Amino acid sequence: MNIGIVGLGLIGGSMGLDLKALGHQVLGVSRRESTCKRAIELGVVDRAFVDFSLLSAADLVVVCTPIGAIAPTVQQLIPHLSSDAILTDVGSVKGAIIEQVSLLWPNFVGGHPMAGKAESGIEVAEFGLFANRPYVITPTKNTPPTAVLMVEEMARSLNANVFRCDPEEHDRAVAWISHLPAMASASLVAACMRETNWDVLKLAQNLASSGFRDTSRVGGGNPELGLMMAKYNRGELLRSLLSYRDCLDEFIGRIENEDWDGLFEDLQDTNHARPLFVKD
Amino acid sequence: MNIGIVGLGLIGGSMGLDLKALGHQVLGVSRRESTCKRAIELGVVDRAFVDFSLLSAADLVVVCTPIGAIAPTVQQLIPHLSSDAILTDVGSVKGAIIEQVSLLWPNFVGGHPMAGKAESGIEVAEFGLFANRPYVITPTKNTPPTAVLMVEEMARSLNANVFRCDPEEHDRAVAWISHLPAMASASLVAACMRETNWDVLKLAQNLASSGFRDTSRVGGGNPELGLMMAKYNRGELLRSLLSYRDCLDEFIGRIENEDWDGLFEDLQDTNHARPLFVKD
Repeated sequence: MNIGIVGLGLIGGSMGLDLKALGHQVLGVSRRESTCKRAIELGVVDRAFVDFSLLSAADLVVVCTPIGAIAPTVQQLIPHLSSDAILTDVGSVKGAIIEQVSLLWPNFVGGHPMAGKAESGIEVAEFGLFANRPYVITPTKNTPPTAVLMVEEMARSLNANVFRCDPEEHDRAVAWISHLPAMASASLVAACMRETNWDVLKLAQNLASSGFRDTSRVGGGNPELGLMMAKYNRGELLRSLLSYRDCLDEFIGRIENEDWDGLFEDLQDTNHARPLFVKD
Repeated sequence: MNIGIVGLGLIGGSMGLDLKALGHQVLGVSRRESTCKRAIELGVVDRAFVDFSLLSAADLVVVCTPIGAIAPTVQQLIPHLSSDAILTDVGSVKGAIIEQVSLLWPNFVGGHPMAGKAESGIEVAEFGLFANRPYVITPTKNTPPTAVLMVEEMARSLNANVFRCDPEEHDRAVAWISHLPAMASASLVAACMRETNWDVLKLAQNLASSGFRDTSRVGGGNPELGLMMAKYNRGELLRSLLSYRDCLDEFIGRIENEDWDGLFEDLQDTNHARPLFVKD
């Protein structure tokens, strides 16, 4: 199969490595000449070009750009696609993207491979990045079933764990486990910086250790990513944030009222609930 | 020097290993006969006993019990101590403990070695646990300077990074970087469990990954520890929680008002501030 990849960063590059190894003809498009050259050198693609014309031969095109660039990219891409080409993306928010893109190209299937690492860019692309990681496919009632099956098959060929759900379910689930943690974590760093006693602030900075490191990590991450989550998943993120504030208020209430039995029960509940989400 | 250790768990045991290696005579006390036996077998102490009478020869006694047991332990210990013995503890909250214990024994210096691991108990005690880790000493204006110097010297001999501050400064600093993160993190787990759509909850549990793992870790931890933080550092924890809620409300406001420039600036600030606390 001829598979096009638009955007040759960590995700697009890693996908290319796997798909090429599976015997597909992989066609890459990047805005930068230097990235195209590097993609060929690294064996990430068979051919690469700065122009979409290369993708007229593609049966499937995976758009691997940042969220904000997905719809504009598809718009520019359309004149070059063969009429039965199937499109998918890798954006971490689905509802808002699908709403825009499916109007432009009905043969579009939303996708979200949940793999990544701290670094980004083609230089850190790697084989097997998606293996044993979730890959969510989010068809709507209007998505052509053949397109869904092709994207699902591609995801499975990467050895990913494929989940299929509505775009709304996806966006609500990732609000809980990804976008809410980012905002709760950012609020932690922001709150600590409000300490007005300089000696205490310096001491806190000196004493901060693994607990603070872990809890603050996603909130201290890439600001553009945080902004995109909030912009494109605003409704679900707000819903989760308001629920989070309610829980926080309950914890504050327990402590204000010295309701130690209640606090202990709450902490026991979270201690029991966390392993339902993550193992260690 | 004869050094007594009361409570032979991870902290007490590891301290014994280091202090014995430094040539001190280490005398251990545990409530359990079996722990005393094991402490001798593991080379954690020179002698161990279930009774405080062993500590009449001690120049320095380190109370390594859980926070709630420190003051009652000191009360039982006092009849056995020589009149010039120096006492210290390893509790993670200082104000409340010092208030109680310094009335019982004026030669008391509050201490907080900030080392630990996920496991507890004497079996996981290790050499060098305190090396390059913060060790906070919290004298008050009434603490005898010779006692402060002795405890400080002991902490330095463990190769710890010694900090000296008021008990109040300590408690405020650890509220920010340890106790607040625990409550913010627990609220995250509690909020996620409030999702009423079962399919979404299951999906969220399946998709949760490193971001959720890190942000929820301290909130899903030992409920007794969380309770002790709240009980013994209630004032400072509440103060930090209220400031945290203000920050959270600001983030919510930015997103509600689609103030994307403001949100981006806030996220840039947290991105820049986090490395002031932790390195990676």
